[in-house]
Amino acid sequence: MSEIDRLVALLAKLPGLGPRSARRAALYLLKRRESLMEPLSEALMATARQIRPCSVCGNPDTTDPCAICADPRRDPHLLCVVEDVADLWAIERSGAFKGRYHVLGGTLSALDGVGPDELRIGALVARVGEGGVREVILALNATVEGQTTAHYLADRLAATGVAVTRLAHGVPVGGELDYLDEGTLTAALVARRKVEGPV
Amino acid sequence: MSEIDRLVALLAKLPGLGPRSARRAALYLLKRRESLMEPLSEALMATARQIRPCSVCGNPDTTDPCAICADPRRDPHLLCVVEDVADLWAIERSGAFKGRYHVLGGTLSALDGVGPDELRIGALVARVGEGGVREVILALNATVEGQTTAHYLADRLAATGVAVTRLAHGVPVGGELDYLDEGTLTAALVARRKVEGPV
Repeated sequence: MSEIDRLVALLAKLPGLGPRSARRAALYLLKRRESLMEPLSEALMATARQIRPCSVCGNPDTTDPCAICADPRRDPHLLCVVEDVADLWAIERSGAFKGRYHVLGGTLSALDGVGPDELRIGALVARVGEGGVREVILALNATVEGQTTAHYLADRLAATGVAVTRLAHGVPVGGELDYLDEGTLTAALVARRKVEGPV
Repeated sequence: MSEIDRLVALLAKLPGLGPRSARRAALYLLKRRESLMEPLSEALMATARQIRPCSVCGNPDTTDPCAICADPRRDPHLLCVVEDVADLWAIERSGAFKGRYHVLGGTLSALDGVGPDELRIGALVARVGEGGVREVILALNATVEGQTTAHYLADRLAATGVAVTRLAHGVPVGGELDYLDEGTLTAALVARRKVEGPV
Protein backbone atom coordinates (compact mmCIF):
# COMPACT_ATOMS: atom_id res chain seq x y z
CA MET A 1 0.00 0.00 0.00
CA SER A 2 1.49 3.31 -1.04
CA GLU A 3 1.74 6.34 1.25
CA ILE A 4 -1.03 8.07 -0.73
CA ASP A 5 -3.36 5.04 -0.52
CA ARG A 6 -2.79 4.93 3.24
CA LEU A 7 -3.64 8.63 3.52
CA VAL A 8 -6.81 8.17 1.44
CA ALA A 9 -7.86 5.18 3.59
CA LEU A 10 -7.43 7.21 6.80
CA LEU A 11 -9.25 10.26 5.42
CA ALA A 12 -12.14 8.02 4.32
CA LYS A 13 -12.68 7.11 8.00
CA LEU A 14 -13.69 10.69 8.86
CA PRO A 15 -17.42 11.29 9.15
CA GLY A 16 -18.74 13.06 6.07
CA LEU A 17 -16.00 11.71 3.80
CA GLY A 18 -16.42 8.55 1.72
CA PRO A 19 -13.81 6.85 -0.50
CA ARG A 20 -14.50 9.28 -3.34
CA SER A 21 -14.36 12.50 -1.32
CA ALA A 22 -11.32 11.17 0.60
CA ARG A 23 -9.46 10.87 -2.71
CA ARG A 24 -10.53 14.39 -3.60
CA ALA A 25 -9.34 15.65 -0.20
CA ALA A 26 -6.01 13.82 -0.61
CA LEU A 27 -5.43 15.40 -4.02
CA TYR A 28 -6.37 18.79 -2.62
CA LEU A 29 -3.82 18.26 0.17
CA LEU A 30 -1.11 17.07 -2.24
CA LYS A 31 -1.41 20.35 -4.12
CA ARG A 32 -1.24 22.43 -0.91
CA ARG A 33 1.64 20.75 0.82
CA GLU A 34 3.01 23.74 2.72
CA SER A 35 -0.19 25.72 3.17
CA LEU A 36 -2.45 22.90 4.37
CA MET A 37 -0.96 19.40 4.48
CA GLU A 38 1.89 20.11 6.90
CA PRO A 39 -0.11 22.52 9.13
CA LEU A 40 -2.93 19.94 9.36
CA SER A 41 -0.49 17.19 10.28
CA GLU A 42 1.03 19.41 12.97
CA ALA A 43 -2.35 20.52 14.33
CA LEU A 44 -3.46 16.88 14.59
CA MET A 45 -0.28 15.89 16.39
CA ALA A 46 -0.35 18.90 18.75
CA THR A 47 -4.00 18.31 19.61
CA ALA A 48 -3.49 14.57 20.06
CA ARG A 49 -0.56 15.23 22.42
CA GLN A 50 -1.99 18.09 24.46
CA ILE A 51 -5.68 17.38 24.76
CA ARG A 52 -7.16 15.77 27.87
CA PRO A 53 -10.59 15.85 29.52
CA CYS A 54 -10.98 18.68 32.02
CA SER A 55 -10.82 17.16 35.53
CA VAL A 56 -13.71 19.41 36.61
CA CYS A 57 -16.24 19.17 33.76
CA GLY A 58 -14.94 16.57 31.28
CA ASN A 59 -14.59 19.01 28.36
CA PRO A 60 -11.45 18.04 26.39
CA ASP A 61 -9.00 20.93 26.21
CA THR A 62 -5.28 21.63 26.14
CA THR A 63 -5.43 23.07 29.66
CA ASP A 64 -6.77 21.55 32.88
CA PRO A 65 -9.12 22.97 34.12
CA CYS A 66 -10.45 23.77 30.65
CA ALA A 67 -10.81 27.34 29.31
CA ILE A 68 -14.50 27.42 30.28
CA CYS A 69 -13.96 26.21 33.87
CA ALA A 70 -11.02 28.60 34.26
CA ASP A 71 -12.90 31.63 32.91
CA PRO A 72 -13.78 33.88 35.91
CA ARG A 73 -16.41 35.73 33.83
CA ARG A 74 -18.58 32.61 33.62
CA ASP A 75 -21.30 32.19 36.24
CA PRO A 76 -20.32 29.38 38.68
CA HIS A 77 -23.91 29.19 39.97
CA LEU A 78 -25.26 27.79 36.70
CA LEU A 79 -24.31 24.25 35.65
CA CYS A 80 -25.37 22.85 32.30
CA VAL A 81 -25.25 19.05 32.00
CA VAL A 82 -24.67 17.69 28.48
CA GLU A 83 -24.26 14.18 27.11
CA ASP A 84 -21.36 14.90 24.85
CA VAL A 85 -18.74 17.52 23.90
CA ALA A 86 -20.63 18.06 20.63
CA ASP A 87 -23.61 19.31 22.65
CA LEU A 88 -21.36 21.62 24.68
CA TRP A 89 -19.97 23.08 21.44
CA ALA A 90 -23.52 23.53 20.08
CA ILE A 91 -24.62 25.45 23.18
CA GLU A 92 -21.44 27.56 23.11
CA ARG A 93 -22.21 28.50 19.48
CA SER A 94 -25.64 29.76 20.53
CA GLY A 95 -23.92 32.19 22.89
CA ALA A 96 -26.99 31.98 25.14
CA PHE A 97 -25.31 30.30 28.12
CA LYS A 98 -22.73 31.94 30.34
CA GLY A 99 -22.47 29.34 33.10
CA ARG A 100 -20.34 26.21 33.31
CA TYR A 101 -20.73 22.69 32.00
CA HIS A 102 -20.63 19.07 33.05
CA VAL A 103 -20.05 16.51 30.29
CA LEU A 104 -21.59 13.13 31.15
CA GLY A 105 -19.90 11.21 28.35
CA GLY A 106 -23.10 9.49 27.17
CA THR A 107 -26.50 8.41 28.39
CA LEU A 108 -27.71 5.56 30.55
CA SER A 109 -28.51 2.56 28.39
CA ALA A 110 -29.39 -0.85 29.78
CA LEU A 111 -29.09 -2.30 26.27
CA ASP A 112 -25.52 -1.09 25.77
CA GLY A 113 -24.59 -1.85 29.37
CA VAL A 114 -24.06 1.81 30.27
CA GLY A 115 -24.87 2.31 33.96
CA PRO A 116 -24.33 5.36 36.21
CA ASP A 117 -20.74 4.28 36.90
CA GLU A 118 -19.85 4.47 33.21
CA LEU A 119 -20.86 8.14 33.09
CA ARG A 120 -19.51 11.13 35.03
CA ILE A 121 -22.58 11.11 37.29
CA GLY A 122 -20.77 10.57 40.60
CA ALA A 123 -18.55 13.54 39.80
CA LEU A 124 -21.64 15.64 38.99
CA VAL A 125 -23.39 14.82 42.26
CA ALA A 126 -20.18 15.50 44.20
CA ARG A 127 -19.66 18.79 42.34
CA VAL A 128 -23.21 19.98 43.07
CA GLY A 129 -22.91 18.71 46.67
CA GLU A 130 -19.87 20.96 47.27
CA GLY A 131 -22.22 23.95 47.10
CA GLY A 132 -22.00 27.07 44.96
CA VAL A 133 -24.28 25.70 42.22
CA ARG A 134 -27.82 27.16 42.30
CA GLU A 135 -29.30 25.61 39.18
CA VAL A 136 -28.54 22.49 37.17
CA ILE A 137 -29.82 22.66 33.58
CA LEU A 138 -30.22 19.18 32.09
CA ALA A 139 -29.51 19.85 28.39
CA LEU A 140 -29.84 16.23 27.32
CA ASN A 141 -31.09 15.05 23.97
CA ALA A 142 -34.87 14.65 23.59
CA THR A 143 -34.42 10.92 22.98
CA VAL A 144 -35.61 8.04 25.17
CA GLU A 145 -32.07 7.54 26.55
CA GLY A 146 -31.56 11.28 27.08
CA GLN A 147 -34.85 11.64 28.96
CA THR A 148 -34.27 8.48 31.03
CA THR A 149 -30.90 9.88 32.05
CA ALA A 150 -32.48 13.28 32.84
CA HIS A 151 -35.01 11.62 35.17
CA TYR A 152 -32.30 9.62 36.88
CA LEU A 153 -30.17 12.75 37.37
CA ALA A 154 -33.14 14.74 38.74
CA ASP A 155 -33.66 11.95 41.31
CA ARG A 156 -30.00 11.84 42.27
CA LEU A 157 -29.81 15.65 42.57
CA ALA A 158 -33.08 16.01 44.53
CA ALA A 159 -31.28 15.57 47.87
CA THR A 160 -28.96 18.51 47.18
CA GLY A 161 -31.91 20.92 47.07
CA VAL A 162 -30.53 22.62 43.96
CA ALA A 163 -33.03 23.71 41.27
CA VAL A 164 -33.01 21.22 38.37
CA THR A 165 -34.37 22.42 35.00
CA ARG A 166 -34.52 21.09 31.46
CA LEU A 167 -34.55 22.70 28.01
CA ALA A 168 -37.96 23.75 26.66
CA HIS A 169 -39.61 21.63 23.98
CA GLY A 170 -41.32 23.38 21.07
CA VAL A 171 -41.29 24.41 17.46
CA PRO A 172 -37.70 24.98 16.22
CA VAL A 173 -37.07 28.58 15.13
CA GLY A 174 -37.66 28.68 11.37
CA GLY A 175 -39.46 25.32 11.52
CA GLU A 176 -42.62 24.60 9.57
CA LEU A 177 -45.50 22.99 11.47
CA ASP A 178 -46.27 20.78 8.47
CA TYR A 179 -42.95 18.95 8.87
CA LEU A 180 -43.03 18.59 12.66
CA ASP A 181 -43.78 15.32 14.40
CA GLU A 182 -46.85 14.98 16.64
CA GLY A 183 -44.76 14.78 19.84
CA THR A 184 -43.15 18.17 19.23
CA LEU A 185 -46.48 19.77 18.27
CA THR A 186 -48.14 18.37 21.40
CA ALA A 187 -45.27 19.67 23.56
CA ALA A 188 -45.43 23.09 21.86
CA LEU A 189 -49.20 23.27 22.44
CA VAL A 190 -48.97 22.21 26.08
CA ALA A 191 -46.20 24.76 26.73
CA ARG A 192 -47.93 27.55 24.81
CA ARG A 193 -47.27 31.06 26.05
CA LYS A 194 -49.26 34.26 26.14
CA VAL A 195 -48.42 36.65 23.33
CA GLU A 196 -47.02 39.74 25.00
CA GLY A 197 -48.09 43.09 23.58
CA PRO A 198 -48.67 43.81 19.89
CA VAL A 199 -47.06 41.33 17.47
CA MET B 1 -7.19 30.50 19.11
CA SER B 2 -7.17 27.13 20.84
CA GLU B 3 -5.51 24.04 19.39
CA ILE B 4 -8.95 22.52 18.68
CA ASP B 5 -10.20 25.67 16.91
CA ARG B 6 -7.08 25.63 14.76
CA LEU B 7 -7.68 21.97 13.87
CA VAL B 8 -11.33 22.67 12.99
CA ALA B 9 -10.31 25.66 10.83
CA LEU B 10 -7.80 23.51 8.91
CA LEU B 11 -10.21 20.61 8.47
CA ALA B 12 -12.86 23.04 7.17
CA LYS B 13 -10.52 23.89 4.28
CA LEU B 14 -10.77 20.35 2.88
CA PRO B 15 -13.15 19.95 -0.06
CA GLY B 16 -16.39 18.33 1.04
CA LEU B 17 -16.09 19.61 4.63
CA GLY B 18 -17.71 22.83 5.80
CA PRO B 19 -17.44 24.44 9.27
CA ARG B 20 -20.13 22.11 10.63
CA SER B 21 -18.73 18.84 9.30
CA ALA B 22 -15.21 19.96 10.21
CA ARG B 23 -16.33 20.24 13.85
CA ARG B 24 -17.91 16.82 13.61
CA ALA B 25 -14.69 15.40 12.12
CA ALA B 26 -12.61 17.06 14.86
CA LEU B 27 -14.80 15.54 17.60
CA TYR B 28 -14.61 12.16 15.88
CA LEU B 29 -10.81 12.46 15.84
CA LEU B 30 -10.65 13.59 19.50
CA LYS B 31 -12.41 10.39 20.47
CA ARG B 32 -10.08 8.23 18.36
CA ARG B 33 -6.74 9.68 19.31
CA GLU B 34 -4.61 6.56 18.93
CA SER B 35 -6.58 4.75 16.25
CA LEU B 36 -7.08 7.64 13.83
CA MET B 37 -5.78 11.07 14.92
CA GLU B 38 -2.12 10.11 15.33
CA PRO B 39 -1.99 7.77 12.29
CA LEU B 40 -3.59 10.48 10.14
CA SER B 41 -1.10 13.07 11.36
CA GLU B 42 1.78 10.70 10.56
CA ALA B 43 0.39 9.76 7.13
CA LEU B 44 0.03 13.44 6.25
CA MET B 45 3.57 14.21 7.35
CA ALA B 46 5.07 11.17 5.62
CA THR B 47 3.23 11.95 2.39
CA ALA B 48 4.12 15.65 2.55
CA ARG B 49 7.79 14.79 3.06
CA GLN B 50 8.17 11.99 0.52
CA ILE B 51 5.91 12.94 -2.36
CA ARG B 52 7.26 14.64 -5.48
CA PRO B 53 6.09 14.79 -9.09
CA CYS B 54 7.50 11.97 -11.24
CA SER B 55 10.23 13.48 -13.45
CA VAL B 56 8.94 11.42 -16.39
CA CYS B 57 5.16 11.86 -16.28
CA GLY B 58 4.37 14.37 -13.51
CA ASN B 59 2.36 11.91 -11.38
CA PRO B 60 3.09 12.67 -7.69
CA ASP B 61 4.51 9.62 -5.93
CA THR B 62 6.95 8.68 -3.20
CA THR B 63 9.35 7.23 -5.79
CA ASP B 64 10.86 8.84 -8.90
CA PRO B 65 10.09 7.57 -11.51
CA CYS B 66 6.61 6.86 -10.14
CA ALA B 67 5.20 3.36 -9.67
CA ILE B 68 3.39 3.52 -13.01
CA CYS B 69 6.42 4.68 -15.03
CA ALA B 70 8.61 2.09 -13.27
CA ASP B 71 6.19 -0.80 -13.86
CA PRO B 72 7.66 -2.98 -16.65
CA ARG B 73 4.26 -4.65 -17.26
CA ARG B 74 2.79 -1.38 -18.53
CA ASP B 75 2.84 -0.76 -22.28
CA PRO B 76 5.44 1.96 -23.08
CA HIS B 77 3.95 2.40 -26.57
CA LEU B 78 0.71 3.90 -25.26
CA LEU B 79 0.77 7.36 -23.69
CA CYS B 80 -2.34 8.83 -22.08
CA VAL B 81 -2.28 12.63 -21.62
CA VAL B 82 -4.39 13.94 -18.72
CA GLU B 83 -4.94 17.42 -17.30
CA ASP B 84 -4.63 16.50 -13.68
CA VAL B 85 -3.67 13.72 -11.27
CA ALA B 86 -7.37 13.31 -10.41
CA ASP B 87 -7.99 12.26 -14.02
CA LEU B 88 -5.09 9.79 -13.89
CA TRP B 89 -6.58 8.25 -10.74
CA ALA B 90 -10.01 8.06 -12.39
CA ILE B 91 -8.60 6.20 -15.43
CA GLU B 92 -6.58 3.88 -13.15
CA ARG B 93 -9.77 3.00 -11.27
CA SER B 94 -11.44 1.99 -14.55
CA GLY B 95 -8.64 -0.56 -15.03
CA ALA B 96 -9.12 -0.13 -18.80
CA PHE B 97 -5.71 1.41 -19.55
CA LYS B 98 -2.40 -0.41 -19.28
CA GLY B 99 -0.08 2.15 -20.85
CA ARG B 100 1.67 5.13 -19.28
CA TYR B 101 0.64 8.69 -18.51
CA HIS B 102 1.64 12.27 -18.96
CA VAL B 103 0.15 14.80 -16.54
CA LEU B 104 -0.12 18.28 -18.08
CA GLY B 105 -0.90 20.08 -14.84
CA GLY B 106 -3.86 22.02 -16.27
CA THR B 107 -5.23 23.33 -19.52
CA LEU B 108 -4.37 26.27 -21.75
CA SER B 109 -6.34 29.32 -20.68
CA ALA B 110 -5.75 32.78 -22.11
CA LEU B 111 -8.02 34.21 -19.41
CA ASP B 112 -6.02 32.74 -16.52
CA GLY B 113 -2.72 33.44 -18.28
CA VAL B 114 -1.88 29.74 -18.70
CA GLY B 115 0.22 29.30 -21.86
CA PRO B 116 2.07 26.21 -23.15
CA ASP B 117 5.09 27.02 -20.98
CA GLU B 118 3.00 26.80 -17.80
CA LEU B 119 2.05 23.19 -18.61
CA ARG B 120 4.23 20.11 -19.12
CA ILE B 121 3.77 20.35 -22.91
CA GLY B 122 7.44 20.75 -23.85
CA ALA B 123 8.22 17.63 -21.81
CA LEU B 124 5.43 15.75 -23.60
CA VAL B 125 6.66 16.68 -27.09
CA ALA B 126 10.22 15.78 -26.11
CA ARG B 127 9.08 12.46 -24.62
CA VAL B 128 7.14 11.53 -27.76
CA GLY B 129 10.02 12.75 -29.95
CA GLU B 130 12.43 10.31 -28.25
CA GLY B 131 10.55 7.49 -29.99
CA GLY B 132 8.99 4.37 -28.49
CA VAL B 133 5.50 5.88 -28.22
CA ARG B 134 3.06 4.69 -30.91
CA GLU B 135 -0.16 6.32 -29.79
CA VAL B 136 -0.94 9.41 -27.71
CA ILE B 137 -4.43 9.34 -26.20
CA LEU B 138 -5.63 12.84 -25.30
CA ALA B 139 -7.86 12.13 -22.27
CA LEU B 140 -8.70 15.77 -21.60
CA ASN B 141 -11.95 17.04 -20.16
CA ALA B 142 -14.78 17.69 -22.60
CA THR B 143 -14.73 21.38 -21.68
CA VAL B 144 -13.81 24.34 -23.89
CA GLU B 145 -10.36 24.59 -22.24
CA GLY B 146 -9.81 20.83 -22.45
CA GLN B 147 -10.70 20.68 -26.12
CA THR B 148 -8.65 23.81 -26.97
CA THR B 149 -5.67 22.16 -25.28
CA ALA B 150 -6.34 18.89 -27.13
CA HIS B 151 -6.30 20.69 -30.49
CA TYR B 152 -3.10 22.51 -29.60
CA LEU B 153 -1.43 19.25 -28.54
CA ALA B 154 -2.57 17.47 -31.71
CA ASP B 155 -0.92 20.27 -33.74
CA ARG B 156 2.30 20.13 -31.73
CA LEU B 157 2.48 16.33 -32.00
CA ALA B 158 1.63 16.18 -35.72
CA ALA B 159 5.32 16.49 -36.70
CA THR B 160 6.26 13.39 -34.69
CA GLY B 161 4.06 11.18 -36.89
CA VAL B 162 2.65 9.39 -33.80
CA ALA B 163 -1.08 8.51 -33.85
CA VAL B 164 -3.05 10.99 -31.71
CA THR B 165 -6.50 9.89 -30.46
CA ARG B 166 -9.10 11.23 -28.06
CA LEU B 167 -11.71 9.63 -25.79
CA ALA B 168 -15.08 8.81 -27.41
CA HIS B 169 -18.06 11.05 -26.65
CA GLY B 170 -21.44 9.46 -25.99
CA VAL B 171 -24.09 8.42 -23.53
CA PRO B 172 -22.57 7.62 -20.09
CA VAL B 173 -23.11 3.98 -19.08
CA GLY B 174 -26.22 3.96 -16.90
CA GLY B 175 -27.18 7.42 -18.16
CA GLU B 176 -30.74 8.37 -19.08
CA LEU B 177 -31.27 10.18 -22.38
CA ASP B 178 -33.84 12.44 -20.79
CA TYR B 179 -31.20 14.03 -18.57
CA LEU B 180 -28.48 14.38 -21.20
CA ASP B 181 -27.56 17.69 -22.81
CA GLU B 182 -28.00 18.20 -26.56
CA GLY B 183 -24.26 18.26 -27.23
CA THR B 184 -23.75 14.78 -25.79
CA LEU B 185 -26.81 13.39 -27.62
CA THR B 186 -25.60 14.89 -30.91
CA ALA B 187 -22.13 13.40 -30.35
CA ALA B 188 -23.64 10.02 -29.46
CA LEU B 189 -25.81 10.06 -32.61
CA VAL B 190 -22.94 11.09 -34.89
CA ALA B 191 -20.69 8.36 -33.43
CA ARG B 192 -23.43 5.68 -33.49
CA ARG B 193 -22.23 2.13 -34.04
CA LYS B 194 -23.71 -0.94 -35.69
CA VAL B 195 -25.28 -3.35 -33.21
CA GLU B 196 -23.30 -6.57 -33.49
CA GLY B 197 -25.28 -9.85 -33.42
CA PRO B 198 -28.33 -10.45 -31.24
CA VAL B 199 -28.80 -8.00 -28.40
